[in-house]
Amino acid sequence: MKDHIELEDYEVGYDIPALPGMDETDIQTPCLVVDLNALERNIKKMGDYAKSKGMRHRVHGKMHKSVDVARLQTELGGACGVCCQKVAEAEVFARGGIKDVLVSNQVRDPAKIDRLARMPKLGARIITCVDDLTNVGDLSAAAQKHGTQIECLVEIDCGAGRCGVTTTPEVVMIAKEINQSPGLKFAGIQAYQGAMQHLDSYDDRKAKIDIAVAMVKDAVDTLKSEGITCDIVGGGGTGSYYFESTSGIYNELQCGSYAFMDADYGRILDKEGNRIDQGEWENALFILTSVMSHTKAEKAIVDAGLKAQSVDSGLPVVFGRKDVEYVKCSDEHGVVADPSGVLKINDKLKLVPGHCDPTCNVHDWYVGVRNGKVECVWPVSARGKAY
Amino acid sequence: MKDHIELEDYEVGYDIPALPGMDETDIQTPCLVVDLNALERNIKKMGDYAKSKGMRHRVHGKMHKSVDVARLQTELGGACGVCCQKVAEAEVFARGGIKDVLVSNQVRDPAKIDRLARMPKLGARIITCVDDLTNVGDLSAAAQKHGTQIECLVEIDCGAGRCGVTTTPEVVMIAKEINQSPGLKFAGIQAYQGAMQHLDSYDDRKAKIDIAVAMVKDAVDTLKSEGITCDIVGGGGTGSYYFESTSGIYNELQCGSYAFMDADYGRILDKEGNRIDQGEWENALFILTSVMSHTKAEKAIVDAGLKAQSVDSGLPVVFGRKDVEYVKCSDEHGVVADPSGVLKINDKLKLVPGHCDPTCNVHDWYVGVRNGKVECVWPVSARGKAY
Repeated sequence: MKDHIELEDYEVGYDIPALPGMDETDIQTPCLVVDLNALERNIKKMGDYAKSKGMRHRVHGKMHKSVDVARLQTELGGACGVCCQKVAEAEVFARGGIKDVLVSNQVRDPAKIDRLARMPKLGARIITCVDDLTNVGDLSAAAQKHGTQIECLVEIDCGAGRCGVTTTPEVVMIAKEINQSPGLKFAGIQAYQGAMQHLDSYDDRKAKIDIAVAMVKDAVDTLKSEGITCDIVGGGGTGSYYFESTSGIYNELQCGSYAFMDADYGRILDKEGNRIDQGEWENALFILTSVMSHTKAEKAIVDAGLKAQSVDSGLPVVFGRKDVEYVKCSDEHGVVADPSGVLKINDKLKLVPGHCDPTCNVHDWYVGVRNGKVECVWPVSARGKAY
Repeated sequence: MKDHIELEDYEVGYDIPALPGMDETDIQTPCLVVDLNALERNIKKMGDYAKSKGMRHRVHGKMHKSVDVARLQTELGGACGVCCQKVAEAEVFARGGIKDVLVSNQVRDPAKIDRLARMPKLGARIITCVDDLTNVGDLSAAAQKHGTQIECLVEIDCGAGRCGVTTTPEVVMIAKEINQSPGLKFAGIQAYQGAMQHLDSYDDRKAKIDIAVAMVKDAVDTLKSEGITCDIVGGGGTGSYYFESTSGIYNELQCGSYAFMDADYGRILDKEGNRIDQGEWENALFILTSVMSHTKAEKAIVDAGLKAQSVDSGLPVVFGRKDVEYVKCSDEHGVVADPSGVLKINDKLKLVPGHCDPTCNVHDWYVGVRNGKVECVWPVSARGKAY
């Protein structure tokens, strides 16, 4: 399908929830709404922070899957490029004009490796992660076939327990193999500690990242002693970026959720013990939902259920209200406790999603709102680009 | 956007996982794969059952969101039409040629009511649910505006605790109001007991449905005594259809999950105490996933995580294998316990989704497979049609 979207091809209420210029009150629900002021402040704040620490910021595109958000992060937040998790996602960003794209994941399927190797022809620097010697040969063969260069990071599993090697000798061995392989270039280390991002306590997160930093430092120092330098030492998320950026080892952050925020991240605490959605970051992403039945006095039924979000990290939270609470959901419905009976049919609520990444993944559009008006409608460009 | 899909507009590995004619082994993962033989057997079996009981079967389109599956259910399973949960979904089915479409949900937003009222012009019978007198007037005004007729079911909340009225006098009052409203026609009762479908025990489910049947019988009998007949008395799901179809009161089933099955439904037990995925229904829907990292001996990492499924009802189950187990997932990864180290990079696994409806909702395509070949690729036609 063509990558370019013409909004006028879409019909409000059928395949798009709103069009630019509409009043916020006319948006069709359920859909994702972005508070553009809050989004811009989050992006600017993280960009300024990274710059102040001398860090590059490679924003995580797998969170929003949006070329438009990535462009804003580049222009307003000084992002050096994006990372993402799928080859097809990388193609979306490269076709969308992002010039530096990291697939922060393993690419093993032959057809996917072939697509990856063709991608530099789109005019972007293409980087991927490797955790297995066999993969090096496959990537090299594909890059040679297409006459391109793929840059490779060796992935260290520094606590997430998923992909990645766990010892410095493995890192060194794979790095050397990459550098000896035509069509490839060793670009550094990928070391994202994903498992600790959502620990509530700052000190618990710090303890986990200290272990990660020690592993990465050992690998980087050993590589250096063998004459191999790391252009990129990357990692860091919304729950840890201050640790990586003051580690003296990492030089690239890869934050995603900070831009939109969600209820699960919102609950973690900063150094002073304050929730990070109470000052550090603003909620910029909401599931807009409408009351569509209220036959029982104490509960309202809204139109955002499991098909409008992912509840893997808990239920959404009603934004800015303490009088009502989203307490349950099924495929198409949400149950909102309304003990005082304040909600009326067609009332709209803004829900902070439990987990932004997989929630964005079920929607086709972001409706960007400012001052009560729909300012823009952005496609979730890489939605469905799962391969 | 145009409704008609040309498969040749799509690129395998970028925006479609396969094309017809490909070998099954070349399908790009993660994606949804349908075992066409199993699907057809499930559809035929339920169709034959409904016919044998003199029941109409209005298949639930919100499960698969697919015009192609709905057509198969009509042709092979004798379905009388579809039900669905959103106005935009109904538009997809009506535009796709389905002639009898029920929005088995409340439609309250003025723009949605307007779209609903226009829909009979597509050549389909359009039915919706009502649980509030105010809604009757709004629907009537819109139908008059467009010169169409909307048929209305009064929804009874018979245990799900969501939408619907809970007393016979309310049913009668709303039914009378519908019949007195120009542009509307009272068509009967909607009474789906959703909350009991997933209770494991047959007897527990029967106890719940007995309560529902008693409520519905009281309403239907009272309406009859007032000279109001119900063309439709609808409800019933994969966990209960044998109860409704032998109740002497219901005349329409609304099953969805039987066609694809999932792990959560699979666990419930039939009258003899056997799991319903061990004889009653076949697993016809799978998430196809590939091993993409295996740096730890005892676990493999696969490419289907939270963005390839909904885990609201539990993790997926690896189909046909007892030697490996899907034990954990994050946004982009699944962790598969591989205690004997049998999995290799690029090995594919078929996962039975925990919950089919919201899992289908994150995918754009069904890859239909028979005898090792891709026979068809169907769009998830109503994906993103959430409004």
